[in-house]
Amino acid sequence: MLPQLRPYTDHAAALADGRHTPRALLEACLEAMEQWEPQVGAFTATDVEGARRAADAATARWKNGRTLSAIDGMTVGIKDIIDTDNMPTQMGSPLFEGHQPRFSAASAWALRDAGAVILGKTVTTEFASTEPRGTRNPWDLSRTPGGSSSGSGAAVAAGMLAGAMGTQVVGSIIRPAGYTGVYGFKPSVGGINRGGSLDLLSHSCSGPMAASLSDAWCMARAITERVGGDPGYPGLGGPLLLPEARRPATLALLRTAGWPGLHPEARAALDGALETLRGGGVRILLPEECPELAVLEAATAESRAIAMGINAWEWLWPLGAFAERDAAALSPSARERLAAARGMTRADYVALLERRRAARAALARLAGLCDALVGVTAAGAAPVGLGSTGDPVFVAPGSVLGAPVVSLPVLRCEGMPLGLQLLGFRDQDAALVSRAAWIGDCLRDGGGRAG
Amino acid sequence: MLPQLRPYTDHAAALADGRHTPRALLEACLEAMEQWEPQVGAFTATDVEGARRAADAATARWKNGRTLSAIDGMTVGIKDIIDTDNMPTQMGSPLFEGHQPRFSAASAWALRDAGAVILGKTVTTEFASTEPRGTRNPWDLSRTPGGSSSGSGAAVAAGMLAGAMGTQVVGSIIRPAGYTGVYGFKPSVGGINRGGSLDLLSHSCSGPMAASLSDAWCMARAITERVGGDPGYPGLGGPLLLPEARRPATLALLRTAGWPGLHPEARAALDGALETLRGGGVRILLPEECPELAVLEAATAESRAIAMGINAWEWLWPLGAFAERDAAALSPSARERLAAARGMTRADYVALLERRRAARAALARLAGLCDALVGVTAAGAAPVGLGSTGDPVFVAPGSVLGAPVVSLPVLRCEGMPLGLQLLGFRDQDAALVSRAAWIGDCLRDGGGRAG
Repeated sequence: MLPQLRPYTDHAAALADGRHTPRALLEACLEAMEQWEPQVGAFTATDVEGARRAADAATARWKNGRTLSAIDGMTVGIKDIIDTDNMPTQMGSPLFEGHQPRFSAASAWALRDAGAVILGKTVTTEFASTEPRGTRNPWDLSRTPGGSSSGSGAAVAAGMLAGAMGTQVVGSIIRPAGYTGVYGFKPSVGGINRGGSLDLLSHSCSGPMAASLSDAWCMARAITERVGGDPGYPGLGGPLLLPEARRPATLALLRTAGWPGLHPEARAALDGALETLRGGGVRILLPEECPELAVLEAATAESRAIAMGINAWEWLWPLGAFAERDAAALSPSARERLAAARGMTRADYVALLERRRAARAALARLAGLCDALVGVTAAGAAPVGLGSTGDPVFVAPGSVLGAPVVSLPVLRCEGMPLGLQLLGFRDQDAALVSRAAWIGDCLRDGGGRAG
Repeated sequence: MLPQLRPYTDHAAALADGRHTPRALLEACLEAMEQWEPQVGAFTATDVEGARRAADAATARWKNGRTLSAIDGMTVGIKDIIDTDNMPTQMGSPLFEGHQPRFSAASAWALRDAGAVILGKTVTTEFASTEPRGTRNPWDLSRTPGGSSSGSGAAVAAGMLAGAMGTQVVGSIIRPAGYTGVYGFKPSVGGINRGGSLDLLSHSCSGPMAASLSDAWCMARAITERVGGDPGYPGLGGPLLLPEARRPATLALLRTAGWPGLHPEARAALDGALETLRGGGVRILLPEECPELAVLEAATAESRAIAMGINAWEWLWPLGAFAERDAAALSPSARERLAAARGMTRADYVALLERRRAARAALARLAGLCDALVGVTAAGAAPVGLGSTGDPVFVAPGSVLGAPVVSLPVLRCEGMPLGLQLLGFRDQDAALVSRAAWIGDCLRDGGGRAG
């Protein structure tokens, strides 16, 4: 059996006239869960009875024409780094075993307020960082689904959820979205209120992973309509429904430092997609023909190191407090991160912030020269084995840049999904998504799926 | 009996040679607590036995010459909006009655790591916002100590603590510091890591209130040495001990929108202090003779409204979640704030952020024209009655500006303490404190205490 996505908002007409219902979606998800979850291990907790009650209430609202939002009745999951008041939030760490928060985090609270049906908590790596927690990729159970939003990607890919919240500080939404063949959307930095999630790092973002681009966008906007972005940031704006598809005039090639390691099949898949886009009238801009793009490439070449260095310092607390309580409960990688932080000075950190600022300025200078940047989400298929969630080298630039990023599941490599990565300009998320919608249509209609 | 401050780091020599000890300080604080606490109500929880153990350990470290920091052994309190792993953290709200966090917040953890003796949690207004929780001013029990860091100010003023953590988003450190006659230091925005405190607003800061300027500075630096500033900010740097006193060449008068309501005695006290400073060789710059200062005055005239509007939006969550759980457990002012937030649009919020940005730019243009700004912390003495914590109109500009601010307890009005407010340039906290040290010396030596 192949994994099967379950888009929701795309079926608004069927929901409105009763051919489809939130309860029917939920039951389909539960069936998929019975089949997939024992092998995949995407969930840390579920609330099936609560979900059924919520789905029935949403079904009644659709019947009465009194829906709370476009995602009213959508079956969703919440990454287990984000607090929920009705299910434990264990942060992928034994230090939080059985931890039951008093209140739901901003995004979880807003999703429920918008009528979404929260079926469960999804597996995160330890503290949404490096250490994997055993989730498998539904496309090939011997492979990782990526991380740190491992459970969110795997659960959506297997049709156990229509959408799920993820978080990304290096590559934790876009990488697993690409590896599992789901739609990922990492908003501009600050785009979605992170309150109540143990996701404290300065360029980290909450964002949806979903069965369609519309589902991802509608989830994100339903949240920000209710709780805004992070304090001090404008937060994600734009239409409540998927922005109208709009052809980009120019896309700039985003090679990243991972380019030399790109798998030949992935390269062929990307080339095929770019060729289809050219055929659709899109100009593809290369670094060789655009000095500003070459400058951006140079400024982001060490994105992974910049992101990891900034993260280390920003983990001084709470990792210090965690280690004091029970250092043995931390993974070796968490202990290494703390040691790295303790080896840094404030001046080291300030220098990394300055490199991040310079990279963002380099991106801003591309505005007017292209509508978005285009590349892949990884060097190829998800790696075999569960010991690592894969290399974030292709997606770290989006995190450092604080830019909105979309992953479209339109490429393949070694018979596995691979994401086409689209990166836009900061706080212009709707513009990016309108281009992503067009690109998705173009590649599906135009035979862009390679491999 | 008059309230009596208990400076600590100022007695480093006595601590080093054993004439003074952490345990002796703690016992003096406990005596003061017996006398004052029943009337003042500054604490929500204490851990006397834990404090005695910590004080004895610190006493041993001083004896062995192996102290952990300048504040090793200093008796301190933690505002009850900041998580502590050994005492409940109740946020001034029945919604958090008995709430026991798993881990200490960054500042509390760092203070303990630096050897400080954490004696108790100090009363905060509800969620560090408006609603008072009954603490009285030790200088006059019929008066408020100010807020929201009510307990921190009152406990330090009464000598029950040498220092205490406060937080300020409008005027919550500098106002109570002024009203209670203690030293207050609100660092530049982002200066002290706020992780683990329910203090989520974008221009809010953690900062110390203490028995001396040295105590305040050493507390702040001991914290940032261990856990840095807020993620994404450089964080408070500078020497670990009080920066050397340095005479300012020019101080600009900071009138604020509260100026017309300034009490005549407060005005006379300020005038007297400015005269003493002039006598010490400091030029006092007036808005009439400096267009840049006049522009800043205009840009910050509505600081209170800007701060309250930004805060309202940023309270959408968690106030929405709190209200859903139990609206009756929220004070009327909290419910009003939520209603105000729901009446705002994202565009309203973005416009307020832009006004804040413009005010900060206006302050930056004063660099080079003066070393700091000088004014008062309030229109006069703390108001009589416990229904309000007083008007923040004199201190809201410092919050909106994201600037470092110091309150020196060198003025008096109606027989009560009043603070001299000194406001510096962003991320130049040590430069401000070096001037504050000189100004404090000048006014104490030069008879600057009016009233």
